[in-house]
Amino acid sequence: MLSQARVNRVIDEMKNRNLDQMLISDPVAIFWLTGKWVHPGERFYGLYISKDKAPVMFINALFQFEEEIGVEKVYFTDTDDIIPILKRYISAEKRLGVDKILPARFLLPMMESRVASGFDNGSLAIDETRSMKDAMEIEIMRESSRINDLCMEDFKKLVQPGITELEIADQMLDIYKSHGASGYSFDPIVAFGKNAADPHHMPDNTALTEGDCVLFDVGGVYQNYCSDMTRTFFYKCAPTEEQKKIYNLVRQANEEALEMVRPGIVIATLDQRARDIITDGGYGEYFTHRLGHFIGIEDHEYGDVSCTNQNLEKPGIVHSIEPGIYCPKANIGVRIEDLVLVTENGHEVLNHYSKDIEILG
Amino acid sequence: MLSQARVNRVIDEMKNRNLDQMLISDPVAIFWLTGKWVHPGERFYGLYISKDKAPVMFINALFQFEEEIGVEKVYFTDTDDIIPILKRYISAEKRLGVDKILPARFLLPMMESRVASGFDNGSLAIDETRSMKDAMEIEIMRESSRINDLCMEDFKKLVQPGITELEIADQMLDIYKSHGASGYSFDPIVAFGKNAADPHHMPDNTALTEGDCVLFDVGGVYQNYCSDMTRTFFYKCAPTEEQKKIYNLVRQANEEALEMVRPGIVIATLDQRARDIITDGGYGEYFTHRLGHFIGIEDHEYGDVSCTNQNLEKPGIVHSIEPGIYCPKANIGVRIEDLVLVTENGHEVLNHYSKDIEILG
Repeated sequence: MLSQARVNRVIDEMKNRNLDQMLISDPVAIFWLTGKWVHPGERFYGLYISKDKAPVMFINALFQFEEEIGVEKVYFTDTDDIIPILKRYISAEKRLGVDKILPARFLLPMMESRVASGFDNGSLAIDETRSMKDAMEIEIMRESSRINDLCMEDFKKLVQPGITELEIADQMLDIYKSHGASGYSFDPIVAFGKNAADPHHMPDNTALTEGDCVLFDVGGVYQNYCSDMTRTFFYKCAPTEEQKKIYNLVRQANEEALEMVRPGIVIATLDQRARDIITDGGYGEYFTHRLGHFIGIEDHEYGDVSCTNQNLEKPGIVHSIEPGIYCPKANIGVRIEDLVLVTENGHEVLNHYSKDIEILG
Repeated sequence: MLSQARVNRVIDEMKNRNLDQMLISDPVAIFWLTGKWVHPGERFYGLYISKDKAPVMFINALFQFEEEIGVEKVYFTDTDDIIPILKRYISAEKRLGVDKILPARFLLPMMESRVASGFDNGSLAIDETRSMKDAMEIEIMRESSRINDLCMEDFKKLVQPGITELEIADQMLDIYKSHGASGYSFDPIVAFGKNAADPHHMPDNTALTEGDCVLFDVGGVYQNYCSDMTRTFFYKCAPTEEQKKIYNLVRQANEEALEMVRPGIVIATLDQRARDIITDGGYGEYFTHRLGHFIGIEDHEYGDVSCTNQNLEKPGIVHSIEPGIYCPKANIGVRIEDLVLVTENGHEVLNHYSKDIEILG
């Protein structure tokens, strides 16, 4: 059902950008506003919202649906010209916001037929609004991460002599489902030993060996919202002194960055703090990616936690904090990742899984 | 290396559409023109061609490459603004063709900065040119389909008592590779018995049973060009009278439509003929899709063989002819598909695999 509250928040953001009307074509954004998820492929699909008029959904008759979602549905077929249909609803004398992914094959004919007096990329009005989760979303994301904590406990039990990364990864989907998730938020990363030193490693036929580190970067989807957490364990042997130093640096970077999260702080300073800790510890060159990313319906949403993001934290934002050190010469990669919610006065870490060094097997 | 002949053909088509210059962003089209395949993801990527100037490739420095391809390479980074870079090359006083997939996030700033005097969707200049394969492409597509014929012979040998659709499908990639293909042109369809009556069925754990039909819709990629063929066999038992009637109707529709292919014929008439044969036989309602699609570097390219395509066949076009009857009540689905090349005076069928009724096992 259409969330009038979310529509109103987007319209407020549109006003800040001098837009009275917008045609949204990103299916994820339309789901967020209406609760309805359609996969239009190459076909036109759009939700029109305006400060003066009721919202309208333009949808190919192939994707017809019965339920009422509080939005007028306008159907068309593959042989219809969509432009005159749009003209009946869009105010031609005003500018129109479109979103960043609208392809030229729709935008150019809209311009030629003067569907609006001008066209702007209005995506930020949606993306920035979506980044601030409302109470219902926060409740779901808390539960999604709670499920991820439970799954991590189960994943640990799969760590058995001689098992391969793929053999573990292949069992994870069922475990997510057994805890109430509908699927993965991304293909899980399972990496043993030196493989963990490649942050893009995908699970392969590498078998577990004594002395390996075991990295799990995993997330599930619960009621359409993603979780995302990373933990790094050790197998059979205690870590070497250098490995322990690396682990503790990553943990310190994770915890100190989390501790700083509160409304009003410049997001780039989180990345800076984590990077300083790891650099001062002598491993700066091995922390090769940004500190985190925003998350919600999509695993990676608009907004990153990097040295270039000068925006301020705002209540409702959820993002990852995931420092890492990838050090092939120490035969190890360590990443420790949690999701954190910005609250009115500070923050709430959504993952509760221990970060103590743990030796499995 | 840039194919000047292909660029010239596109520029000829552009002239027919009053375009002197075009900015191409589809990575497949750029590969077809330059031999270089880049996967730019969300980043800007473009090939500029013009009737008056040398071609220029705009490419993120992340995708830098050494080899000379006969095109000036202009690199930029994630922090560069691409618009002033484009302005240095594009003639601002002329209209610019862009392609249909160019997203609003690039097109709108190009318009605002008046990179050109106007913007048109010029994709057809490329798509229609690409549909007419040149001698080199024809040679490769012939070989690609020859490989598919050889693979079909091997796939047939996998039909053993109790085997499942997935167990057969899982062996197909290695068979393609053993015959010199680099991979699939699409995930293979293997369907037994009633499953074949669903034209969108994907291989599952259904086990083979006596009396099943066995449908293989398969294709491989050879030197970047796709093959695509369907054959329907029977397992252990001869088909029933009704199944035989269905099979022979589909075969007749396939063969008569192929026979009509020649330059100058309206493409829709092929679909009409095949549909008439099946309808007159009493199974019109079970032929639920268009007769075929164009094919080349992509399995489905611009151009279809349907009742709405009033264009004429032209030498160099390659498309499928794939009538089918999907009849759950007769416990059968039959599709027979070949690729056909339009020649100067007629046609050449690229597949040579027998269409006689064959009982396996």
